[in-house]
Amino acid sequence: MIKYVKEFTKEMHRISESTIHRLSLYYRTLVGLQRERHITVSSRELAKRNKFTPAQVRKDLSFFGSFGTRGLGYPVSELKDKIASILGLNKTWNVALVGVGNVGSALVSYKEFSRQGFIIKKVFDNDQRKIGKNHKGILVSDVRYLARELKEDKIEIVIIAVPASEAQKVVAEVVSAGVHTILNFAPTNLKVPGNVVLRTVNMAMELEHLSFALTKRGRIKEL
Amino acid sequence: MIKYVKEFTKEMHRISESTIHRLSLYYRTLVGLQRERHITVSSRELAKRNKFTPAQVRKDLSFFGSFGTRGLGYPVSELKDKIASILGLNKTWNVALVGVGNVGSALVSYKEFSRQGFIIKKVFDNDQRKIGKNHKGILVSDVRYLARELKEDKIEIVIIAVPASEAQKVVAEVVSAGVHTILNFAPTNLKVPGNVVLRTVNMAMELEHLSFALTKRGRIKEL
Repeated sequence: MIKYVKEFTKEMHRISESTIHRLSLYYRTLVGLQRERHITVSSRELAKRNKFTPAQVRKDLSFFGSFGTRGLGYPVSELKDKIASILGLNKTWNVALVGVGNVGSALVSYKEFSRQGFIIKKVFDNDQRKIGKNHKGILVSDVRYLARELKEDKIEIVIIAVPASEAQKVVAEVVSAGVHTILNFAPTNLKVPGNVVLRTVNMAMELEHLSFALTKRGRIKEL
Repeated sequence: MIKYVKEFTKEMHRISESTIHRLSLYYRTLVGLQRERHITVSSRELAKRNKFTPAQVRKDLSFFGSFGTRGLGYPVSELKDKIASILGLNKTWNVALVGVGNVGSALVSYKEFSRQGFIIKKVFDNDQRKIGKNHKGILVSDVRYLARELKEDKIEIVIIAVPASEAQKVVAEVVSAGVHTILNFAPTNLKVPGNVVLRTVNMAMELEHLSFALTKRGRIKEL
């Protein structure tokens, strides 16, 4: 087992951002397959349900060693558990949210988080009218004590949902508290030290994929 | 000019999802550079600000022909405008939002959308208590008339923010109205015809990148 973990950890370095994204999608497909009472699944079926090529699926799953069986495919439940263990979905994580404005407020009640083990333990804001009040079942703390409280509550992941102009300051506090994994919803480029993992979700950027597609279509029609 | 457009449209087919994502990031960097009064920018600087390699930046920008000057770099304003034109950010788009729950409500007031030209013209819901009422300056329409109103209002992009169980039904209506670009916030895999461009934003999946990073670190420490 130790040998397996060691080898696996070596492999984990080679897993790219886009592989992680695809693993998240496979995980969701496998949950669905289990619900539909499938015992095994072929790389073809996994590919089809996610619009990837079977070769891509086989390559991604090769990280787990050769445990798919030719002709039979992969055992659904086992593969689901392996992916969950890699993505850290087989445990719960202590999450704090900074900023209870429109976006922050929606995130507090986003059920998918707790369903996947991401438990929002603390929320922070700088608005005196919100501090000390109950917000959807969670007491709003004063952002002035952010670093101290992140440590006390053993927070592992921080979600930033403050205005763009405030976000870099929050990052500094979060990093000083020793939290090195940040999900940012502020529409701005944040600077973080090399040992910090930062993901930024910019919802306008998602729409730009669509306006690109529309622009492309428009151009093709013009020809 | 026509020749340029034709060649360019040919090129657009080769632009991948991840290239579009990087173009969105370059665009934001260029807006920042312009604000800082830079006239030109090197591929090295563009790379550094986005944590890409200079080779990646040069490859991405090669789509626009050879207009960077060796030693001087790219003209900031011109490059920004070219990227805006490709991403469709040099015009406005008519957007409709379906579902004014927690997430939908946050999206209505997400200022970055209108700043980039995505104008939410209509919002729909199935809750009788919301229909006919003003929601943050927009009248909430009855989702029963979705297809008809999407056509009447010449909606080009639909954002879906309904519960997972309702989302596929909404897709059918949207597609029947001839809208072929959808941004989905419902945490579910949606099926769409081949000519529809669908992007799904799953905020829990973003967190999984972070729990993966934490899991990896934990494993490495154990060794």
